[in-house]
Amino acid sequence: MQDTDLPIAHLVLGGARSGKSRHAEALVRAMPGPWIYIATAEARDAEMLERIARHRHDREPQWRTVEAPRALVAAIAAAPEGAPVLVDCLTLWLTNIMLSDEDVETACRQLTEAVARRRRPLVLVANEVGFGIVPDNALARRFRDHAGLLNQRLAAVVDQVTLVVAGLPLTVKGRDR
Amino acid sequence: MQDTDLPIAHLVLGGARSGKSRHAEALVRAMPGPWIYIATAEARDAEMLERIARHRHDREPQWRTVEAPRALVAAIAAAPEGAPVLVDCLTLWLTNIMLSDEDVETACRQLTEAVARRRRPLVLVANEVGFGIVPDNALARRFRDHAGLLNQRLAAVVDQVTLVVAGLPLTVKGRDR
Amino acid sequence: MQDTDLPIAHLVLGGARSGKSRHAEALVRAMPGPWIYIATAEARDAEMLERIARHRHDREPQWRTVEAPRALVAAIAAAPEGAPVLVDCLTLWLTNIMLSDEDVETACRQLTEAVARRRRPLVLVANEVGFGIVPDNALARRFRDHAGLLNQRLAAVVDQVTLVVAGLPLTVKGRDR
Repeated sequence: MQDTDLPIAHLVLGGARSGKSRHAEALVRAMPGPWIYIATAEARDAEMLERIARHRHDREPQWRTVEAPRALVAAIAAAPEGAPVLVDCLTLWLTNIMLSDEDVETACRQLTEAVARRRRPLVLVANEVGFGIVPDNALARRFRDHAGLLNQRLAAVVDQVTLVVAGLPLTVKGRDR
Repeated sequence: MQDTDLPIAHLVLGGARSGKSRHAEALVRAMPGPWIYIATAEARDAEMLERIARHRHDREPQWRTVEAPRALVAAIAAAPEGAPVLVDCLTLWLTNIMLSDEDVETACRQLTEAVARRRRPLVLVANEVGFGIVPDNALARRFRDHAGLLNQRLAAVVDQVTLVVAGLPLTVKGRDR
Repeated sequence: MQDTDLPIAHLVLGGARSGKSRHAEALVRAMPGPWIYIATAEARDAEMLERIARHRHDREPQWRTVEAPRALVAAIAAAPEGAPVLVDCLTLWLTNIMLSDEDVETACRQLTEAVARRRRPLVLVANEVGFGIVPDNALARRFRDHAGLLNQRLAAVVDQVTLVVAGLPLTVKGRDR
């Protein structure tokens, strides 16, 4: 059972270019600000730099942006008391963890625990990456496994899970189910 | 808000071999004919030729088939007044546009506008391609981005969006939601 | 129409690491035992061996495990009268059939017929693999086609179809729809 005194936590899943980030931002903007945007992207090439810059430009000035390519639990804990937090996205964070020398299992467990004992509203964006053909290379298969398991763990401790399809929300867990 | 005097428009999304085309055809056949089938496939190899031929063979003679690998907006406009139109599929159309020298953004915007101001019932079939691992090559990533954005745009202007899973419809937008 | 005297059959679809197997096992464990677990995995490498071993370790002793990499119809027929059967998973079975010299179409048709005329509760696990970019190689495309068509066929003859997303069930066909 969920402790009903905990602030709401919402996991927003979606494919590439599904509109999941925009949906998640709208969920946060419906709450009183200021809003904390935790960006996990680490610009490794020009394509990503351009993507991150475009995202920033689209966001209103009320957002306070924090960059946390790996230290996500600390960034969530450091957010001002009560301020809603948007984490975009867990899939990039997981990629960063896997490319570092941190232990993936430990990092995922610590994140799940931090989400479970949240002190502020949390909206977490993650990619659903498991609906394709088995990837050719072992690293991609390991990534897919970790991403799927992380999504399962977080889905178990949040209040709501939404799958975004073509910009539209499908409720997987939550109030109307 | 949707102008309720407009004929219905329905976006049918699905994965490969999900039964999305069959579902879309059934939606059109439930309306009075004749029915216009706009095929966007351009046979580039034997595998596709065989696939197109098999599709034709399965269709009843009441269908009038129009081939529009790229000139989709014109083909929709040229359909007889009031006749329901099935477009199968937008993903192949997008591929054809990307392989041509047309501007993808302009083509997608014009298609979205044509769907928004429709004069006849429209059923549009598109693949959902964003639920796998990030593709290795940049062209596939660009395609995946364009396809996802096009699905979002169209989903915003149609009345109903259905995700077909194993031949069965999941309503994402529409009357019963 | 479904013959309502037939024992229930349930198709559980999901992506990689979606929690589909765990969900399917819970469905079977909710029925009186003993339970038959038909494993279709054939250990081809160390990665798979380790995965299979871990699955076994997680399962209670009430399970009776049968290995059926290809002879799935016979394994279902040989299960004790009335005992619920879990098949995990159809995607590996299909892979094994495609790598053998059996005719894939015949094997899929025979499996569908066996599921349609079931004598015991059946829970079937399968991967949804069609939501990504078109695979580069022809074998993967053929596999994706066969997997999608098999899912469609089975979905048509079972009572319930569930799509598992991040460990949570989305009903695609069944009692509450």
